[in-house]
Amino acid sequence: MFIAMNRFRVARGSEEAFEALWLNRDSHLDGVPGFVAFKLLRGPTAEDHTLYASHSSWESQAAFAAWTESDAFRAAHRQARGGPKVDYLGHPVLETFETIQEMP
Amino acid sequence: MFIAMNRFRVARGSEEAFEALWLNRDSHLDGVPGFVAFKLLRGPTAEDHTLYASHSSWESQAAFAAWTESDAFRAAHRQARGGPKVDYLGHPVLETFETIQEMP
Repeated sequence: MFIAMNRFRVARGSEEAFEALWLNRDSHLDGVPGFVAFKLLRGPTAEDHTLYASHSSWESQAAFAAWTESDAFRAAHRQARGGPKVDYLGHPVLETFETIQEMP
Repeated sequence: MFIAMNRFRVARGSEEAFEALWLNRDSHLDGVPGFVAFKLLRGPTAEDHTLYASHSSWESQAAFAAWTESDAFRAAHRQARGGPKVDYLGHPVLETFETIQEMP
């Protein structure tokens, strides 16, 4: 399994707007070939930001790459730009992983 | 869902030993109350290290906390010390998350 993780440092006070942006948009992931699962995770809060991570799981790296070049991807990201104002500390950081062990 | 993610920076050349350590040990997670799932992920390789992340999912923060104080936890971590030598860049970094959105 291939996992793409995006890490967002959301400025303190912007958490509600950030969560609303994700909860209210259509991800356009349903039915995308090779898409397995998606999670949005809220992590630790530091003095100036709260860490969030989005995880999307794919059957393969190729399925993820194809999605990033698809109309569904563009449609999902276009919406995000029209949402509530969110302040970030820096750009999101994308890290990609391969599963090497899994249970159950 | 509660997710505990541990990030390991494994020195270049130690990847095989690190993976062997995880693949050969008994995690002692089977049957732990509140345990949902476990994944070991291999991430990007930089000049001096490869990033790995372990994800364990739990029904609640309390279930995770109880596990870290259990005999099963101690047994799993005792084994790791007897394994092959692995060089790390720094200590593992534990980050914990709450799921706020999930599909399917």
